[in-house]
Amino acid sequence: MQIICLQENLKQALNITERIIGRNLTLPILNNLLLTTENNRLKISSTNLEIGIISWINGKIEKPGEITIPAKLLSNFIGNLPNKKIEMRVKGSQLHLKCENFKAVLNGLEAKEFPIIPKIKDKPLIRIKGGVLKANLSQVVEMTSLSDSRPEISGVLMNFEKNTIKLAATDSFRLAEKIISHNQKESINQAMIIPQKTIQELIRILGEKEAANDNQGQEVEIILGNNQVLFNLGDVQIISRLIEGQYPDYQQIIPKNFTTHATLIRTELINNIRVASLFSGKVNNVQFFIRSKPALIEIFAKDIDVGENKSQIEAKIEGKEIEIVFNCRYILDGLNNIMSDKVILGLNNNSSPVIIKPVGDASYTYLVMPIKA
Amino acid sequence: MQIICLQENLKQALNITERIIGRNLTLPILNNLLLTTENNRLKISSTNLEIGIISWINGKIEKPGEITIPAKLLSNFIGNLPNKKIEMRVKGSQLHLKCENFKAVLNGLEAKEFPIIPKIKDKPLIRIKGGVLKANLSQVVEMTSLSDSRPEISGVLMNFEKNTIKLAATDSFRLAEKIISHNQKESINQAMIIPQKTIQELIRILGEKEAANDNQGQEVEIILGNNQVLFNLGDVQIISRLIEGQYPDYQQIIPKNFTTHATLIRTELINNIRVASLFSGKVNNVQFFIRSKPALIEIFAKDIDVGENKSQIEAKIEGKEIEIVFNCRYILDGLNNIMSDKVILGLNNNSSPVIIKPVGDASYTYLVMPIKA
Repeated sequence: MQIICLQENLKQALNITERIIGRNLTLPILNNLLLTTENNRLKISSTNLEIGIISWINGKIEKPGEITIPAKLLSNFIGNLPNKKIEMRVKGSQLHLKCENFKAVLNGLEAKEFPIIPKIKDKPLIRIKGGVLKANLSQVVEMTSLSDSRPEISGVLMNFEKNTIKLAATDSFRLAEKIISHNQKESINQAMIIPQKTIQELIRILGEKEAANDNQGQEVEIILGNNQVLFNLGDVQIISRLIEGQYPDYQQIIPKNFTTHATLIRTELINNIRVASLFSGKVNNVQFFIRSKPALIEIFAKDIDVGENKSQIEAKIEGKEIEIVFNCRYILDGLNNIMSDKVILGLNNNSSPVIIKPVGDASYTYLVMPIKA
Repeated sequence: MQIICLQENLKQALNITERIIGRNLTLPILNNLLLTTENNRLKISSTNLEIGIISWINGKIEKPGEITIPAKLLSNFIGNLPNKKIEMRVKGSQLHLKCENFKAVLNGLEAKEFPIIPKIKDKPLIRIKGGVLKANLSQVVEMTSLSDSRPEISGVLMNFEKNTIKLAATDSFRLAEKIISHNQKESINQAMIIPQKTIQELIRILGEKEAANDNQGQEVEIILGNNQVLFNLGDVQIISRLIEGQYPDYQQIIPKNFTTHATLIRTELINNIRVASLFSGKVNNVQFFIRSKPALIEIFAKDIDVGENKSQIEAKIEGKEIEIVFNCRYILDGLNNIMSDKVILGLNNNSSPVIIKPVGDASYTYLVMPIKA
């Protein structure tokens, strides 16, 4: 292999691919990035055996070839070089590099040992703008379960239907649902559960491309393979295994009618809950009193060792008064994923979930189970 | 105790004092801040038994008194309140607080259990501008020894002489010296070794006051007590124990004459060493070749597992050529504490230290011992 490329392009491709690589002592090749030439471009691949990331960059390919190089070393090295032309040449299992006044030799491993990243050649389910996908996935991704006991909720559900994609994530204590509209003509009807880590990487990479001004309205193809999914960003592909199993029928636990509605300013609610959380002990229990005369929400927390705190927020209250206890961290997670100035809370009684929605946006629903008194 | 003060003032005083407080399980009172009223002001004190910090703020003292409150709780609580008036009232061992729509009760411990922070009433050795003190101490503070085996070099030397204060720090592998000029008329001749942690806190607090636009040219009094030092910033005092022992006579190891001088651009040298450091192995060894034909510094590092790297930097070279090996991290620490565009290196042979100085500033000297071949 012998190629010339620009430092800036190579640096970006390394940043995108190297982040899924940890420190693998049993299988050292997993610490490495695979560099190959393909159709007059340099292709950089990484895998942790669950997720594979491939990035292509332009360059002058003088001689095709391939090698694997430790990811952190290559990325740190290239990241510190000046933004000039880099010459790379493979000799045996070493990569020789030149850039301005720098000359280096990096020890690698043979490319043939590198695990195969599956190829998915099916037709895309859908094409969607990268920015839209990123913004919507970001609103649900943290709500997945971190426990291994129910793998089917350890990922994000993507439910493709006519005109919509429904995203959902839950850990059984709280749930977020986000509905993306689409106007693709062909009918699709598919559901998949994608590991949280994959969604986090997809969000990160879309963010890096946004920051590099590199995805002005760029579309992402979502392609379903054999228990695998491919997010095709054009010059970057993310391939991930899917989670097997049946996602719970969460729709049935979302109440449709409420006896109490409270509308209030989101940042005030966040701030008052944050103060209360200092007094909420290890269980994070915070009491909410929704009062109609005067119309306000009172927030109370008490810990026998620490002390107690009470605060009030003006609110528009419709329906009956209610007292209810929540884990305040779950409420905060939802509020922090809403962008609107005001939020509306829908409640029924102190053993039914609360629904939190942005005012003026029907596409996002956040649900939290109460703590039973 | 019953007082009213502004959230912003209280928040700043808490930030300044609470940072030295860790998590002390054997002596819980050390997790607390002492709040007392003194001369119509609120006085907040913290101590870790080595360093004490006291901060005074204005307020309306309706009833004098005192209490201690867990530092992190109080600081998080006050930090999240709106910037309005706060009413505080001590009842038994509890502090009752009110601020707008927030009401809280914080459990405390009795003030009489709080350790005494020594009072130092001597005459100041010197008065010096806070900004000057901070900038100069910052250039030496990281060079102290982290080992317990030689406590006398685990702190920063402050050597007060006629017209100058000499600051020095070393871990025996490298050394930094900074000379501050002063024009105080009374003659002073005192030396003290101040723990690194104290200097770090002093720098942090001067920085916070700078950020709050609160020390426009404000002077710091340095007062020597009985094995204690007091830095008096006016509304903040830092009291610390001193390190006992004799600081090494470091002047004798700083060479005064050199066979080789190299002048080059500081950021280029930093960048090339940083690249070389990736190939410098666990011992951080990097080779420097100072060449006169052509005039340049060549930097080389090789690690049998990783690979090797060579780079060149243009330099003005005076005197004879030399090859020498350094721990690159020590060289970087010095270069990162120099502000000038260019630096000058003074060398003699491959077993003598290198001296690094900013071009155009005689007040800073950085010395690194070479690694013997």
